[in-house]
Amino acid sequence: MAGQLTLGIDVGGTKILGLAIDGAGAVLAEAKVATPRVVPAENDDDSGAEAVIEAIADVAEQLRGTLGTEAARLSAAGVGVPGLVADDGTLSFAPNLPGGEGLDVRGRVGRRLGDLRVVVDNDATCAAVGEWTYGAAAGATDAVVVTLGTGIGGGLIVNNRVTRGAHGFAGEIGHMVVDPSGPSCPCGKRGCWERFASGSGLGRLAREAAHAGRLEEVVRLAGGDPEAVRAEDVTAAAAAGDTGAQTVLEELGWWLALGLANLANLLDPALFVLGGGLVDALDLVLEPVRVAFDDLVEGRHRRPEVMICLATLGERAGAIGAGVLARQDDRAGVVGPD
Amino acid sequence: MAGQLTLGIDVGGTKILGLAIDGAGAVLAEAKVATPRVVPAENDDDSGAEAVIEAIADVAEQLRGTLGTEAARLSAAGVGVPGLVADDGTLSFAPNLPGGEGLDVRGRVGRRLGDLRVVVDNDATCAAVGEWTYGAAAGATDAVVVTLGTGIGGGLIVNNRVTRGAHGFAGEIGHMVVDPSGPSCPCGKRGCWERFASGSGLGRLAREAAHAGRLEEVVRLAGGDPEAVRAEDVTAAAAAGDTGAQTVLEELGWWLALGLANLANLLDPALFVLGGGLVDALDLVLEPVRVAFDDLVEGRHRRPEVMICLATLGERAGAIGAGVLARQDDRAGVVGPD
Repeated sequence: MAGQLTLGIDVGGTKILGLAIDGAGAVLAEAKVATPRVVPAENDDDSGAEAVIEAIADVAEQLRGTLGTEAARLSAAGVGVPGLVADDGTLSFAPNLPGGEGLDVRGRVGRRLGDLRVVVDNDATCAAVGEWTYGAAAGATDAVVVTLGTGIGGGLIVNNRVTRGAHGFAGEIGHMVVDPSGPSCPCGKRGCWERFASGSGLGRLAREAAHAGRLEEVVRLAGGDPEAVRAEDVTAAAAAGDTGAQTVLEELGWWLALGLANLANLLDPALFVLGGGLVDALDLVLEPVRVAFDDLVEGRHRRPEVMICLATLGERAGAIGAGVLARQDDRAGVVGPD
Repeated sequence: MAGQLTLGIDVGGTKILGLAIDGAGAVLAEAKVATPRVVPAENDDDSGAEAVIEAIADVAEQLRGTLGTEAARLSAAGVGVPGLVADDGTLSFAPNLPGGEGLDVRGRVGRRLGDLRVVVDNDATCAAVGEWTYGAAAGATDAVVVTLGTGIGGGLIVNNRVTRGAHGFAGEIGHMVVDPSGPSCPCGKRGCWERFASGSGLGRLAREAAHAGRLEEVVRLAGGDPEAVRAEDVTAAAAAGDTGAQTVLEELGWWLALGLANLANLLDPALFVLGGGLVDALDLVLEPVRVAFDDLVEGRHRRPEVMICLATLGERAGAIGAGVLARQDDRAGVVGPD
């Protein structure tokens, strides 16, 4: 029996994953539901946001059910949500969870869960805490965990602490502008890093290549329309040996390396951990990414090597990290491996 | 008598400024010498680097002379140098101090100063420590101090600590790439932030405007050659009301705001402090910079305001910060106001 138990609940764009973990990070229960579609409220009706709160509570109840009598050892629940989370647990800005903006996640989940203390944080920060505590970044005093999905999320470990900044919003690495004349981003700017080096960035690079005639076989498999080419078509073709698709992945890798080099210049981490849904595709281009990174970081020949490695907790990283954060009284507290 | 005294010595591109400060930051002595020109050694002759060490020692001796019997209270000296400074006090990478690369500044200055403990750090980090301890960033737990000179240096205050990263190289904000197809940088990359938003960036933007016929009066004053236009010609003309020059300054301001927005997305500081030689020119465009920043930072309408203010210690910031750092046994230690 490793001390207290906590719940960790990761609210993703398509599903909500919940885990019950013990003080050593062992997973004692798992539950999953589809993320309700949140519709922006035109009036006072916030039934959409309410549905998300209900779904989180539903996952928590399932986990308690699985735990049975062990549920009495639960002390707290951590919840990871996409967007900017203020220190008071409110979702301040949520471009990827329409209608969630302004939602008091901590207060409302807290009222549904009754006796459990609730901690709320950004989903990528939770994933970083998970990887830092039990995964690929374990033991690092300075690391950046990069979550590559539809967009790019980030969690910064600086001076052996999770960095949240002055208002809780640090780590929005996907919205670092790397080309002000680049494609528009849902955030309102142009040329954000996640327009190039994420899953949606890969789709865009692929369609550009398709229109330029560099992805003939992939376009044929997608039904002949360059606009129909998706990121997963390219990664599948690249894995099967299509050189055009491999070139597109290398282009993605170059943009990924550019952003990592920027982050290395700013924060000088000992390692980068790459996680998220795009990681399987990255396996194919990890060496080119490392080479491009060395070329792009300042003074590479005079620096110790910066490790670039893949996450090890997979899709559970966010929920595990949320469960770890739930152990702390204060979400700004020091969080390190046990 | 406020406790121990320390020396703070700031090695700049043109001059070396030294101060003796007490534990409350009061300046008790000041000395200044020209920075010797360091010539890259083709062979084992490192007379150039030796000249810099001698000049630092010369400044220290002048300060001791001014202090007189008070010099007995000196415990340590801090030295700020341009470039990447490793944790052992070696200058690892120094594009702005040719021939200084690989120089063991701590060891060599230490041998010349005899009984004084020597701490070495990056010059912009020293300036940040100065502004954080006694200047515009005093009391902030999360702040970024941006030094705008020929290039752009940075000092990051994260979680109430100076951030140095895993190897001591953090804060190289000027080499964040913001346009990969932009102008080349001496660091070897293209489109680094300092190619746009520094003194040399201003000169480049000005010459572009001059060639495009947007700076007729400034070109005339510079002798008729657009290539002869310098940054200071533009700031002088803008201050005198030249609208073409003001437009160039606003362009600089937009690029400055872009980089600040990137840093806010990453680190979520409570404030930015702008220092360095370009600050006087910035006075004219600070409001446009704030407006552009609000437009560029993610989720501005859902964030508390991020302050953007000017440094208050002027050209002394680096030397004062070096003197503050000298008080610590370990340069990675927590450094806060007394």
